Amino acid sequence: MNIVKPQTIAGVMELLPEDQIVFDKIKNTIEKTFLSYQFLPIDTPAIEKNDILFAKGGGETEKQIFAIDSSKKDMSLRFDLTVPLARYVAEHFSELNFPFKRYQIAKVYRGERNQKGRYKEFYQCDIDIIGNNSLSIHNDALIPKVIYDIFQKLNFDGITFHINNRKLLNGFFESLDIEEKEEVLRTIDKKAKIGDEKTKELLDEIVGSEKSEEILKLINTDKGNEATLSYLENLDLNENYKKGLKELKEVYKYMLKFGIDDKSILIDLSITRGLDYYTSTVYETFLDGYESIGSVCSGGRYENLAENFSKQALPGVGLSIGLTRLFYQFQELGLIEKYRENFTDSLIIPMDESLNFYAIDIANKLKDEGFKIDIYLEDGKFKKKMNYADKINVKKVIIIGQEEYEKKLVSIKNMENGEQVSVDINKISEYLK
Amino acid sequence: MNIVKPQTIAGVMELLPEDQIVFDKIKNTIEKTFLSYQFLPIDTPAIEKNDILFAKGGGETEKQIFAIDSSKKDMSLRFDLTVPLARYVAEHFSELNFPFKRYQIAKVYRGERNQKGRYKEFYQCDIDIIGNNSLSIHNDALIPKVIYDIFQKLNFDGITFHINNRKLLNGFFESLDIEEKEEVLRTIDKKAKIGDEKTKELLDEIVGSEKSEEILKLINTDKGNEATLSYLENLDLNENYKKGLKELKEVYKYMLKFGIDDKSILIDLSITRGLDYYTSTVYETFLDGYESIGSVCSGGRYENLAENFSKQALPGVGLSIGLTRLFYQFQELGLIEKYRENFTDSLIIPMDESLNFYAIDIANKLKDEGFKIDIYLEDGKFKKKMNYADKINVKKVIIIGQEEYEKKLVSIKNMENGEQVSVDINKISEYLK
Repeated sequence: MNIVKPQTIAGVMELLPEDQIVFDKIKNTIEKTFLSYQFLPIDTPAIEKNDILFAKGGGETEKQIFAIDSSKKDMSLRFDLTVPLARYVAEHFSELNFPFKRYQIAKVYRGERNQKGRYKEFYQCDIDIIGNNSLSIHNDALIPKVIYDIFQKLNFDGITFHINNRKLLNGFFESLDIEEKEEVLRTIDKKAKIGDEKTKELLDEIVGSEKSEEILKLINTDKGNEATLSYLENLDLNENYKKGLKELKEVYKYMLKFGIDDKSILIDLSITRGLDYYTSTVYETFLDGYESIGSVCSGGRYENLAENFSKQALPGVGLSIGLTRLFYQFQELGLIEKYRENFTDSLIIPMDESLNFYAIDIANKLKDEGFKIDIYLEDGKFKKKMNYADKINVKKVIIIGQEEYEKKLVSIKNMENGEQVSVDINKISEYLK
Repeated sequence: MNIVKPQTIAGVMELLPEDQIVFDKIKNTIEKTFLSYQFLPIDTPAIEKNDILFAKGGGETEKQIFAIDSSKKDMSLRFDLTVPLARYVAEHFSELNFPFKRYQIAKVYRGERNQKGRYKEFYQCDIDIIGNNSLSIHNDALIPKVIYDIFQKLNFDGITFHINNRKLLNGFFESLDIEEKEEVLRTIDKKAKIGDEKTKELLDEIVGSEKSEEILKLINTDKGNEATLSYLENLDLNENYKKGLKELKEVYKYMLKFGIDDKSILIDLSITRGLDYYTSTVYETFLDGYESIGSVCSGGRYENLAENFSKQALPGVGLSIGLTRLFYQFQELGLIEKYRENFTDSLIIPMDESLNFYAIDIANKLKDEGFKIDIYLEDGKFKKKMNYADKINVKKVIIIGQEEYEKKLVSIKNMENGEQVSVDINKISEYLK
């Protein structure tokens, strides 16, 4: 038999079961929280038509796409969950209720260069609320509240939402007669990475020293939220600016009302998020003390979800957690240990096959009582059996020998301290607790 | 803006949210049951190297594969979860504990012809137990018990496991000096579809009339399990036959012991399952009263999971539910209705924006108490708001107007009978129960 070396393709995350359990636990926490806010599940095919995926024009994504090798070359794997959502909402428009609150947790595919912490296949966990023609700005405050709950349940006390508004920024640039808005946004977006000085230098080149000073004055407002808001209030600029400021204030006010702590919100005028897609609220989210891993959840509001697929105006707001990358970062930081718990509490070991039936009766009973119980039915020496118990890391082993069977007993061995006791079969559950 | 027609690729299942909820409920029932028997989760990449996928030789699967269009043409989407499991176990062999009990619920991909009920992308729900060098035959009885529990939880009282043993069949053929074993197996496998007469005809052609009569006598034993077993016992043939019979008896005995009702087991010598892969126990599973939809869960025992990836002998036993196809069949039979439940119990409607904060307080409180509650924050006429409540099918609407706010009340409208009552804000939960 010719042996093929067993290996995955490069650049994918594949976990051993003990880590997969932790991954699933985090994923379930995210999903349960999405559901608790009445977001509806959808599940779209991983393969979409190319004219859907590239309706916006290909660009960078087209280079990273996993195309399906068919004679017609007309389908590929999705690279995000937003395009499929847009297609879904447009396709099923008449059968959905708006505002449409949906979540999707699924794998997406990008031909990333092989690089640590970058994956060709990764989970995205997306929530979005889509309106039909209009969508209240208050939804922009609900979305981060859902994420806030998730990280609280994952035992992160400190999380900070950096929020901003693109209308406000655009209005501000207009007030300075800046035409290179996109370029300026792109430069500001890099500020956290390249620092103030380098940002100033780049902005000087684009808009001149005077205007760049004004921009930096605006985006460096870190006086606290209330002070920032009154500073912005005092600027009193054009309509676009005022509209953006009003939205920003409303989002901030409602975030507090939904139950997000003020110290978890930072009005941060330097957050810009991408370039053409977002039109109003934008967010980035940082875990306090772990800011270096970057934003763990980003998103914002967009004018029109499905302009390539429908004439319907479908404004929306959404946030997305890149779970695979986040899990990698948790691994690097040693944070996943705190989510570990015993998969199997107790293992039942019959000493030989003739005791299997007695062991199965006990296993069935304990399982019905809710214990995470397993039974070892393989042949072999006692040592081999105990070895298995040791490896799967159970707290207690229930040993069944001929003598125990005759006396209607079991022996329970505590694997932590090595102690062993004989217990009546009707009292096992008391000893397992 | 150029509008692209929003549609999925052909031959995939995409559900509306109300059906997706039911699909997820069934999927969760399957997953929870797998976990309750201490099967470990794994999650392998959907894309595998071609030399992994085709290690066994391409054949039919290669024609149906979704290859990834890369310059090297060296990867494709998985077409089942068994090859990835084999690769996984071989790759991580030294880090796994055996017997290795794993489940995987994931999508697989096959370029099926477009046809009703056939999908290019579908969920498989697999459980397998893999041994290192050896694996007790008792595992072959545990696996169907897990499936039994699943369909009980899904409210199917009647389910029948048709079980057989390939060693027994092969031994029987050997005793008749039949060399065309594979051809005979393939013909027997069709019996349920083509009927006894046609089967006899085909067998006559392969082995001659005399031997085909013997075969039909064997595979038509439907005298009840105990009677079938003593009939088989009395045949007293070669070693292979005896070994198979011993295994079959053991599996049957342990299935009963694990808690499967005798009327849910049928020793059925006409079940053969595929051709080269299975070597001992084979199963097919039918839902009583819905036999026409075919086997809902099939599998068996194999000698060596990963012979193409490892020199290690890795015997295993597994069963698989084809969930997407099963769900389609449930839809066709109108069976999914019984799994529907309210996604949102109550909707809070503030009459105008000034009452939002009061409404949010109430929503937060009810949510904390465990109610499936949502709040409608969009502007609009009251009628539009009530329309939304009606569409999402909530049982109760909590209406908040200025007067209610001032008196610390809410109005609760029962959407089933139209009755409306005023309720003190501290007593809302009593009215929602």
